[in-house]
Amino acid sequence: MNKFLKYGLSLSLAAATFGATANDVISDQQRTNAKALISEALESDLAYSIVESLTTEIGARMGGSEAEARARKWGQELGNELGFDKVSIEQFKMPFWDRGDLSISLSKPYAQELYGTALGGGAASKGSVKSELVYFRSLDDLMKVTENQLKGKIAFVDGDIMVKSQTGAGYSQANQRRRIGWQHAERGGASALLVRSVGSDSHRFPHTGMMSSKDGDWASIPVIALSNPDADQLRRLHNLGSSLEVNLNSGAKWKGEVSSGNVVMDLIGSERPDEIVLIGGHLDSWDLGTGAVDDGAGVAITTAAAALIAKLPKRPKRTIRVVMFGAEEVGLLGAKAYAKQHEGELDNHVLATESDFGARSIWQLNSNVSDQATLLIDEIGKILSPLGIVRGGSDVKGGGPDIIPLDQKGVPTIRLSQNGMDYFDLHHTPDDTLDKIDADELAQNVAAYAAAIYLAADSDVEFRRKP
Amino acid sequence: MNKFLKYGLSLSLAAATFGATANDVISDQQRTNAKALISEALESDLAYSIVESLTTEIGARMGGSEAEARARKWGQELGNELGFDKVSIEQFKMPFWDRGDLSISLSKPYAQELYGTALGGGAASKGSVKSELVYFRSLDDLMKVTENQLKGKIAFVDGDIMVKSQTGAGYSQANQRRRIGWQHAERGGASALLVRSVGSDSHRFPHTGMMSSKDGDWASIPVIALSNPDADQLRRLHNLGSSLEVNLNSGAKWKGEVSSGNVVMDLIGSERPDEIVLIGGHLDSWDLGTGAVDDGAGVAITTAAAALIAKLPKRPKRTIRVVMFGAEEVGLLGAKAYAKQHEGELDNHVLATESDFGARSIWQLNSNVSDQATLLIDEIGKILSPLGIVRGGSDVKGGGPDIIPLDQKGVPTIRLSQNGMDYFDLHHTPDDTLDKIDADELAQNVAAYAAAIYLAADSDVEFRRKP
Repeated sequence: MNKFLKYGLSLSLAAATFGATANDVISDQQRTNAKALISEALESDLAYSIVESLTTEIGARMGGSEAEARARKWGQELGNELGFDKVSIEQFKMPFWDRGDLSISLSKPYAQELYGTALGGGAASKGSVKSELVYFRSLDDLMKVTENQLKGKIAFVDGDIMVKSQTGAGYSQANQRRRIGWQHAERGGASALLVRSVGSDSHRFPHTGMMSSKDGDWASIPVIALSNPDADQLRRLHNLGSSLEVNLNSGAKWKGEVSSGNVVMDLIGSERPDEIVLIGGHLDSWDLGTGAVDDGAGVAITTAAAALIAKLPKRPKRTIRVVMFGAEEVGLLGAKAYAKQHEGELDNHVLATESDFGARSIWQLNSNVSDQATLLIDEIGKILSPLGIVRGGSDVKGGGPDIIPLDQKGVPTIRLSQNGMDYFDLHHTPDDTLDKIDADELAQNVAAYAAAIYLAADSDVEFRRKP
Repeated sequence: MNKFLKYGLSLSLAAATFGATANDVISDQQRTNAKALISEALESDLAYSIVESLTTEIGARMGGSEAEARARKWGQELGNELGFDKVSIEQFKMPFWDRGDLSISLSKPYAQELYGTALGGGAASKGSVKSELVYFRSLDDLMKVTENQLKGKIAFVDGDIMVKSQTGAGYSQANQRRRIGWQHAERGGASALLVRSVGSDSHRFPHTGMMSSKDGDWASIPVIALSNPDADQLRRLHNLGSSLEVNLNSGAKWKGEVSSGNVVMDLIGSERPDEIVLIGGHLDSWDLGTGAVDDGAGVAITTAAAALIAKLPKRPKRTIRVVMFGAEEVGLLGAKAYAKQHEGELDNHVLATESDFGARSIWQLNSNVSDQATLLIDEIGKILSPLGIVRGGSDVKGGGPDIIPLDQKGVPTIRLSQNGMDYFDLHHTPDDTLDKIDADELAQNVAAYAAAIYLAADSDVEFRRKP
């Protein structure tokens, strides 16, 4: 992995000493360094090289898999090579769900293959099942089923193609059918549930994803996501009054406990080493694609940003920690393990954010920090403005999925929001591959992270709101 | 299928009698009718309804399959309902190639599923085969293999993502690796050949398609197309110096003789019933998608255009024949059967063209007809100009794939060229589904065909060049 060593930087040239103006939240020196980081980042292809390496040399890497273990080793070697002061792997245990093989086809009104994939947490079918399909136009309709109404039948919950938006606003609404649909199909006695997959595209790829457990229990029936064009076809056939029958055989199942882990890489602060500014992405991916936009990009962006900061002649005052979280897709398991393993030092986590929304340009900077720190974020917003980034809200909660457990423990957050307009075209599909990443957009992300995180880590500002 | 009856037209209103100006290639009456056809077509959703019906009620329909037989029955009923004067099914025999099941995955440097599909004419593997992969950057490189150089190995011929163009110009070049690659892999003794699939997209769908036979012989090894992102991945791994190993099991095989057929639908000419203007599309599709753009669209466009002409108060002078060709994808078998079965009357085929290049708008009108008829085509070009169609060349050969056998027998051709910029993103993939069709663009096609074919059929012009 010596190839990353070529990314030697000329940042030392930018580190001539300026006097800081008193009362400024950002000193002249800091401003100069931040601008130098932006320039360097925009010229660097380090992040692209990282995500290329991860997706090519490791490939798909499901949480808890052997591939994810290889990815941790890859991450550790990368962190050491890029000059982090401390790199460690923090292991945890997790249950492993395996997709198994799936065959699914329409058998009436005619035979035709359907493009489906098992949803996470679903069970195997009882061998090959051929049953009448009962159509539900929406989750609301499925939720009205009565006990045993679906006995010996397969349910299909339709819905609509997910609304596209820059913020991904359509996801949580559309996602309900994936999350809880199974509980209602099971209550009705269905032998399986098919779900219009949650995606904004019109390609023949089903989107996978985890279901929600209910009081710790997972589905006892197979739950299969169908691609939008397949769901369209079932809807049209249903509307024509056709009787539908489906043949399916799914081998999905839980396979017991395995190991996963987080890769934790520190640039140790020069003045306040115990205070941590945490950034990261998640190292695991779904098994269908190679996890380029979800979330190889986030791992690459945050690692590259910290690596650029590491080339400055002096470490920022606070510690910058990059976490490559494990097992995010299957339930934020790495994030929960991190919050637990670092429970005693969460008060020292001064700020946290994650890049986990693809590889498109950042367009907005949101925050949820103290009033004093909001002034700093406002200033950071001005420095990021030439990158096409607008300052968003100062009380916008959320720093990314893996930050949720930290947020719940009171860790302040910011969010560098990426344009998610086409994120849910690719999300959780086989189509999440390297070719979808634009190197220039990725570099813009690195520039924004490098400048923002450097300035946050080098500041004395208290981010946490007074209780 | 009575739903199509609702498309009653008000064209009779447009048929008030005008006197024709002598010496004009197009009379005032004809010009009025052509413009009325255009207006009606742009307002009509008949073509969209036809392709929706075909792709929904029949679905995928491979040449020689039971589904294609259902499609012929569907076509026959449609023709009768839309008021064609004569509708017949003309059967022919053909050999049937079956894709069978395929599993293919990388086993070294790590295990990962590959997205592949068998190419038409390929053989089954000898059970499950696990072999070293030998990488060839191009077909030229593969063509240099010596006998037995690939013994016990699987060859992969890379190449480049097909160049996008309005005309589809990149296809025949890229397609060589699909067509003849197998002959060289076989000569080298390879146990299978993998081919970067021929498509201009960067989606994880492999593009299928027929290979070329060699002196009537087909490949004796499996030949598998891989999606562009999968081929990219193999290239990157090869360039990193990784040893590659692939595990594959393909059940593709020839399955003996079956029946197919062409659906032939005539609007019998009012003055020169023996003279035939032939249009059409192909009824069969590949099995992976539902054949919406290839070629449900062409069937729908040409059928709808003729159906609009049928609503005129009087039949055009010459017969307009719509042919829904069978078994195009697997070797122009319907087209060849038609040319043979109609051998004695090909001199009466005054003009022929096919719509088989997707569902995007027509942008150019090309022709290859006599000088006198070129003047007529020039005038037709002016009438089509408001549709965004430019007059192309007057000596451009080719009326579409199924017209090739007629062209070879001297039948004059025109071509209403569609914008093919994204055609090869979808072509021969599972993603060729109804949602890819824009109803307005489809209606523009119908408008152009209706006007052009009406004017050609109602003219006395001799299209054939003097020998």
